[in-house]
Amino acid sequence: MRIDILTVLPQLLESPFSHSILKRAQQKGLLEVHLYDIRDYTTNKHRQVDDYQYGGGAGMVMMVEPVANCIEKLKSERTYDEIIFLTPDGEHLNQKICNKLSLLKNLILLCGHYKGIDQRVRDLFITKEISIGPYVLSGGELPAAVLVDSIGRLLPGVLNDETSALFDSYQDNLLAPPVYTRPEDFRGHKVPDILLSGHAKQIDEWRHEQAVIKTTERHPDLLD
Amino acid sequence: MRIDILTVLPQLLESPFSHSILKRAQQKGLLEVHLYDIRDYTTNKHRQVDDYQYGGGAGMVMMVEPVANCIEKLKSERTYDEIIFLTPDGEHLNQKICNKLSLLKNLILLCGHYKGIDQRVRDLFITKEISIGPYVLSGGELPAAVLVDSIGRLLPGVLNDETSALFDSYQDNLLAPPVYTRPEDFRGHKVPDILLSGHAKQIDEWRHEQAVIKTTERHPDLLD
Repeated sequence: MRIDILTVLPQLLESPFSHSILKRAQQKGLLEVHLYDIRDYTTNKHRQVDDYQYGGGAGMVMMVEPVANCIEKLKSERTYDEIIFLTPDGEHLNQKICNKLSLLKNLILLCGHYKGIDQRVRDLFITKEISIGPYVLSGGELPAAVLVDSIGRLLPGVLNDETSALFDSYQDNLLAPPVYTRPEDFRGHKVPDILLSGHAKQIDEWRHEQAVIKTTERHPDLLD
Repeated sequence: MRIDILTVLPQLLESPFSHSILKRAQQKGLLEVHLYDIRDYTTNKHRQVDDYQYGGGAGMVMMVEPVANCIEKLKSERTYDEIIFLTPDGEHLNQKICNKLSLLKNLILLCGHYKGIDQRVRDLFITKEISIGPYVLSGGELPAAVLVDSIGRLLPGVLNDETSALFDSYQDNLLAPPVYTRPEDFRGHKVPDILLSGHAKQIDEWRHEQAVIKTTERHPDLLD
């Protein structure tokens, strides 16, 4: 899978892609992430990427031309399955969308910044608008990293069997049950007996029960 | 405001906090972000932070002791308003929670990783569990960065008037209206006449109308 990220702040994204699972996915050749600095696609002499908004009002707006130039250059090189704009007013991300996107081959992620982006970018180039949640951030860069992480870990071979994504929260519409590791006794707080019992079947039942209880208490909407 | 972040992967968070608004907030002395490597609080010779889970099953679990040591060290130095665990099964973040948290003084954010964290950490130390959305990531590091960004930009003085958070999507339960900047004509796609009219009052009305239309189409739940 190839993911091309367009941003005015590529430096902000350096460390998230050079560690942990996203680093391993890239090293294994399962995921390619490329960062594009929108400033490199300006044609004006000041490499300006934003300007005041028509109609007045606070905040700068990202201009259509540099973004258009960058997207068109990339589209001339390969076919993209989706061109996604990360924006607080997009469709709210969920595990089902992540699962679907993880099956695609080439994605462009466009990070908003400043007050917003010229509406014509959205009308002419964007095929999908995604929000990682109902809150506002200073740009689409962290949301792009979140999206790449959520998708990247689903690619076959990225996680080993031990951490298989199939047993995560949300994958089966249940939150994960409580987990415990050593020591058995931490200052008098003990691991539940059942987990030390060795009865695999009863442990499975207990875990399922705990998962249902937690889901009912915290996110009953998942059970519908 | 002071935010202390506990993680097994502090390197992953380097670049998000050294750019853009979060960098400015720190330079202005409005926000302090400190990263703590949980591995530094281990007492075993291999600096081990995770172990197999009791009861069997895939995935490693973060151990209670190093996290407890780190949290207790910090709590001995100052009082914390909240000790927040970032986890997919936590309460879903929204703008109202961000607004509330932005009024606090000292926060600890604990990033989950691997298969999960020993339940006793959650029972004994955590005062609030937050999920940035209904999807699974490889760790709580990006969610911590998202949370700090969403809170940081609300601190008085971090944003200048031009980009005031008061006019963002979600702050007034409306999504933001479309915005446009130069050029007026991009390959035949023009800026709406109303925005070039100079009639401030009519422009305001148009923007409100557009915001209501977009909210109705995309997130009608906000209008309730």
